[in-house]
Amino acid sequence: MSATSSNATLIGIKGSRQRLDTPCLVLDLDMFESNLAAMHGWARDRCIALRPHAKTHKCATIGKRQMEAGAIGLCCAKLGEAEALTDHGLEHLMLTSPVTGRAKIDRLLALNARLPDLTLVVDDPENLAELEAAARIAGQQLRLLIDVDVGTHRFGVISPDQALALADTMAASPALNLMGIQGYAGHCQAITDYHERLEVSHRALGVLAGVRDALIEADHACDIVTGSGTGTHDVDQTFGLLTDLQVGSYVFSDVTYDRVTMTADGERRVQPALFVHSRVVSRCQKGYATIDAGSKSFSMDGPMPILVDGPTPGSEYGRFGDEFGRVSLEGVGRDVALGELTTWMVPHCDPTLNLYDTLHCVRGDTLVEIWPIEARGAAG
Amino acid sequence: MSATSSNATLIGIKGSRQRLDTPCLVLDLDMFESNLAAMHGWARDRCIALRPHAKTHKCATIGKRQMEAGAIGLCCAKLGEAEALTDHGLEHLMLTSPVTGRAKIDRLLALNARLPDLTLVVDDPENLAELEAAARIAGQQLRLLIDVDVGTHRFGVISPDQALALADTMAASPALNLMGIQGYAGHCQAITDYHERLEVSHRALGVLAGVRDALIEADHACDIVTGSGTGTHDVDQTFGLLTDLQVGSYVFSDVTYDRVTMTADGERRVQPALFVHSRVVSRCQKGYATIDAGSKSFSMDGPMPILVDGPTPGSEYGRFGDEFGRVSLEGVGRDVALGELTTWMVPHCDPTLNLYDTLHCVRGDTLVEIWPIEARGAAG
Repeated sequence: MSATSSNATLIGIKGSRQRLDTPCLVLDLDMFESNLAAMHGWARDRCIALRPHAKTHKCATIGKRQMEAGAIGLCCAKLGEAEALTDHGLEHLMLTSPVTGRAKIDRLLALNARLPDLTLVVDDPENLAELEAAARIAGQQLRLLIDVDVGTHRFGVISPDQALALADTMAASPALNLMGIQGYAGHCQAITDYHERLEVSHRALGVLAGVRDALIEADHACDIVTGSGTGTHDVDQTFGLLTDLQVGSYVFSDVTYDRVTMTADGERRVQPALFVHSRVVSRCQKGYATIDAGSKSFSMDGPMPILVDGPTPGSEYGRFGDEFGRVSLEGVGRDVALGELTTWMVPHCDPTLNLYDTLHCVRGDTLVEIWPIEARGAAG
Repeated sequence: MSATSSNATLIGIKGSRQRLDTPCLVLDLDMFESNLAAMHGWARDRCIALRPHAKTHKCATIGKRQMEAGAIGLCCAKLGEAEALTDHGLEHLMLTSPVTGRAKIDRLLALNARLPDLTLVVDDPENLAELEAAARIAGQQLRLLIDVDVGTHRFGVISPDQALALADTMAASPALNLMGIQGYAGHCQAITDYHERLEVSHRALGVLAGVRDALIEADHACDIVTGSGTGTHDVDQTFGLLTDLQVGSYVFSDVTYDRVTMTADGERRVQPALFVHSRVVSRCQKGYATIDAGSKSFSMDGPMPILVDGPTPGSEYGRFGDEFGRVSLEGVGRDVALGELTTWMVPHCDPTLNLYDTLHCVRGDTLVEIWPIEARGAAG
């Protein structure tokens, strides 16, 4: 018996959301589907493709829902994610960071043999040489994107000349196929002001456009120009360069993205759909209670979780170690109950979800399904 | 295929530690065994029992090694941990935080029926009443400790009178057995100065002694007086009150504990044994490289990881998102290699380990075993 298997007995029972054993990760399906409809409908209206990033959810069921909603494929940050999603029936995957070293390249080729159009990025001549040799010996074709540093300074070639050198190497090898370029502007995603976000992100896209132009001028293919994210999807679309957008957090939103998913008119495109349920387990002190969710239930890399339902609307989360948190009770005006439920908007969705093995999916107040998070984990 | 199963092919191969697919969690068995010997030897010499906290490692194999080293039992922070460890052959478990609510109490009774001496804490009369009713109806006996707030203000009764009221309730029920008291001084564990740590921790133990005396004076049993942790184990032992010490982090140490596990003479009792291996995956920038371990590989709730082996001794870790980090390369004086290995002391061992599914156990430079982390997860 565990919390998840104990909760599985509640599936389909009306009001079961209030009875979930805690801590647990809860996906509000109505909000999730509304986010899917909003983002994919927006993209369809503008004839821009979406290639959602699976690093956010690591969940095959969500990946399938994104494909059904019209996505052209899914992004994965790491090979391990792509392997797990492939094991669960997904294809059309793109690896958005380099695959380096013998062990990982062996795994890459095994995966490439299973998928129709696996695509990956490269930003280093030595990496390209090891990929080329391995693919040639295995008799495989690789589909490659050149990763371009557009200002995040984490990955990517830093000049059009570096991109051209990689493209020339690809052109010279029958095992390598240049599909286009990637430029991910991570540094723009969380800028809260719409106009500042637009300006900084368009500057980044200008760098990417320079590399695209250089490649085309040198007669290299550049069919795919991929990048963007939930924070900048709308401002990036207006630039007219990207062929697909790597939106990820839009399915869930979180405390960070709740501040940046505004349109130019100040309207929220997506709404929080992912929550942690936690209960009061001790109440010996005045002014706060102890709840059963700490740093093993919330990622502590960003803002604090925000209460969306609990003893009193103003309650704040406080850190109380690995397994526990504190919820402030100023002004609650009554004794808080042992077991009282607190519901929290997740602080940063990707690493918080990564702490859990399952998603408890609710429709209104009823638990309707439990989805496994198949690609969870730190493994590369 | 995944990183773990890819690494499994390296078991027993000399030098395989250098070839591990990354990111991965590495346990240096020589250091781990030296920590076990140091702490259990120290306790044996002083005739004090150890009841190590399994929340640190969540690993049945480590729990068994602790029992073989002389531990009288293991602590668990949550019911889910105790269930997983019981499934893998451990017994003599103590739950160090309250078990509240119908769903969890049902699971508690199922576990209690499987274990010879499961013990749990209580700090609330209402919780005690629900435990009593459930145990009576199930025809079971519960072994209980009264949790006492000694200054951490997270759990525990705040006066001897509250403890006496709980003890009286227990005395009146044939289903409940008072075994003693617990007082965990979480606020003292990370005080770096030895003498300050001693002073603050002894003040906390003074509070616990007051409750013990009140119980004994009222003819209640108080056979177990449990508490302490790796940070205060030595200063607490000298106080002469505790019957067993809940040391946890001593098996691994980490950046935080590396500063506080000094004896009075400034000697380290335990040494870092737990590391994250991560490799360079991109090197397009001057002054640093990108490595494959981010906030899904290191807990970000405390200090940064510290480099113990890598391109240059002075290299520092920098945050670079969920999947990646940056390692500074000032003064390295050469091109860093793609795939170059960086080895990091874990910043905070408990929540970092909780990100991983397996421990890669090395002896010197050779991977010798891979241990599953059976109780990993956020579930309660």
